[in-house]
Amino acid sequence: MILNPLVQQVLDLIGIFAFALSGALLAVRKRFDVVGIVVLAEVTALGGGLFRDLVIGAVPPEAFTTTSYFTTPLVASVVVFFWHPRLTRIRRFVLFFDAIGLGVFCVAGSLKALNHGMHPLAAVALGAATAIGGGAARDLLAGDVPALLHPESEIYAVPALVGSGLVAVLAVTGTLTPITSALAALLAVVVRLLALHYGWRAPLARGGGSL
Amino acid sequence: MILNPLVQQVLDLIGIFAFALSGALLAVRKRFDVVGIVVLAEVTALGGGLFRDLVIGAVPPEAFTTTSYFTTPLVASVVVFFWHPRLTRIRRFVLFFDAIGLGVFCVAGSLKALNHGMHPLAAVALGAATAIGGGAARDLLAGDVPALLHPESEIYAVPALVGSGLVAVLAVTGTLTPITSALAALLAVVVRLLALHYGWRAPLARGGGSL
Amino acid sequence: MILNPLVQQVLDLIGIFAFALSGALLAVRKRFDVVGIVVLAEVTALGGGLFRDLVIGAVPPEAFTTTSYFTTPLVASVVVFFWHPRLTRIRRFVLFFDAIGLGVFCVAGSLKALNHGMHPLAAVALGAATAIGGGAARDLLAGDVPALLHPESEIYAVPALVGSGLVAVLAVTGTLTPITSALAALLAVVVRLLALHYGWRAPLARGGGSL
Repeated sequence: MILNPLVQQVLDLIGIFAFALSGALLAVRKRFDVVGIVVLAEVTALGGGLFRDLVIGAVPPEAFTTTSYFTTPLVASVVVFFWHPRLTRIRRFVLFFDAIGLGVFCVAGSLKALNHGMHPLAAVALGAATAIGGGAARDLLAGDVPALLHPESEIYAVPALVGSGLVAVLAVTGTLTPITSALAALLAVVVRLLALHYGWRAPLARGGGSL
Repeated sequence: MILNPLVQQVLDLIGIFAFALSGALLAVRKRFDVVGIVVLAEVTALGGGLFRDLVIGAVPPEAFTTTSYFTTPLVASVVVFFWHPRLTRIRRFVLFFDAIGLGVFCVAGSLKALNHGMHPLAAVALGAATAIGGGAARDLLAGDVPALLHPESEIYAVPALVGSGLVAVLAVTGTLTPITSALAALLAVVVRLLALHYGWRAPLARGGGSL
Repeated sequence: MILNPLVQQVLDLIGIFAFALSGALLAVRKRFDVVGIVVLAEVTALGGGLFRDLVIGAVPPEAFTTTSYFTTPLVASVVVFFWHPRLTRIRRFVLFFDAIGLGVFCVAGSLKALNHGMHPLAAVALGAATAIGGGAARDLLAGDVPALLHPESEIYAVPALVGSGLVAVLAVTGTLTPITSALAALLAVVVRLLALHYGWRAPLARGGGSL
């Protein structure tokens, strides 16, 4: 709507593909079978958007109405199933695309929430939920505590909030355009990549774990 | 709609009862209390259909509007609470009914999705999600990785996809009738029972677990 | 609607704040970072109501449309982040407010379900789900089996069912007023506090764990 639709869809598919790769690779690491690979790829790629669409009442969700959205994770599953030893060597490559997915999804999520008349603060929350929801579901299904919760992982929710928060500010100030939206996505991507490079972590409350 | 409504409801209730038994039995095995038994029975029996109904926008979901749908798991809970030592000896019996539930649910799920105007490919996915969603939620709540993901369990999602996939093919080719729908459900049941009998498992990607 | 709206909102916010405290404190105990604290606070406080609203078709859910509903858990997160060593000493205080949240939420949930035309039995289930859903999601995300399932915890779902069940009985008998609704909430609170004081637990099926 605000971004050029073709550009938006290409970015969406890149994000979906990257998230699906991360889900499929986790399934291989957990020694799940091919069904597990496909399920984790689909859930990771589509879970966040599915949650957003249910909340804003956009049913049936895009995840089920746009064929390319749920066939793309199948392609990622095939890639991982046959070539995963090479993919682990290019884990940095996957993290890079995952960062792009994060940026695209947090901006696309908050834009869609705003377009459905949600309050800007709710749009910030939904944009972030779109970006981080799929990964959280992936980790839960695989039997792990979601990476975004614990402190050994570089910040992930914060860049998503930066991107979706900037979209809300742009909307409130009437400066939301395709270019500023793209810059918001870019900012989220850059913050995430810097967090990975410099090992930025979120602070802990003092003295936890002793309760 | 396509099946005789009475036949469909009887089959639905058999599926709900079988799924509820599997949830209640897992709760007993995990030493959960009676609340845990009822919650797992309800979630296993109704979770998949609830997800499907939320996705296609059929709210409030059948799980809450059809009284027999959410009282049936209570009956299964009572049965398990008082007679579970006998039920474990008839675990094969439960697996047999669970297979019937799987067949009924994957076909009913994809039929309902098609009736709500979903794309045939989306109907395949939703049919399978209806059949496997409750069991996945059951395993998550009980603290286990969902059985359908890991390779020690006989194939479960595949028979569901066979059933819902056949329904989609029948719909696209204009050959969807009560009889062909019933045959699709029967095929899913037979594939699942054969998988149990012969120990069919889904393949793993080579070299997993070393990443 | 049935309660005085201002009274209801004050009670809702007390319940949200208490549930958020319990989520944030669990995050600290698990050594999650500040993102984990906020996520668990939000999920615990808003998860049950979100589920209820999705099921009855009240979208977008109140959790996203009422600003105070999703800013209150942020306040609770700040409180826990800076003062949690004191909060653990007042764990009894948190359990007390959590009991008030339980009472308010089970009654508010069943009232809202009735107002949306749900069957009384479904309203009982949805009222209980509103009260217990957030805590179940909190425990799952934190990597624990939900406390309400296992038998070492004092009964939690039962007081919720008492409160939402009483609302349904009042509605069916035409005696639902602000005062009787408040009494139903109070009854649920009292049952929960008595359960905590006397260590009431739900019964187990005999011989579980041996299957």
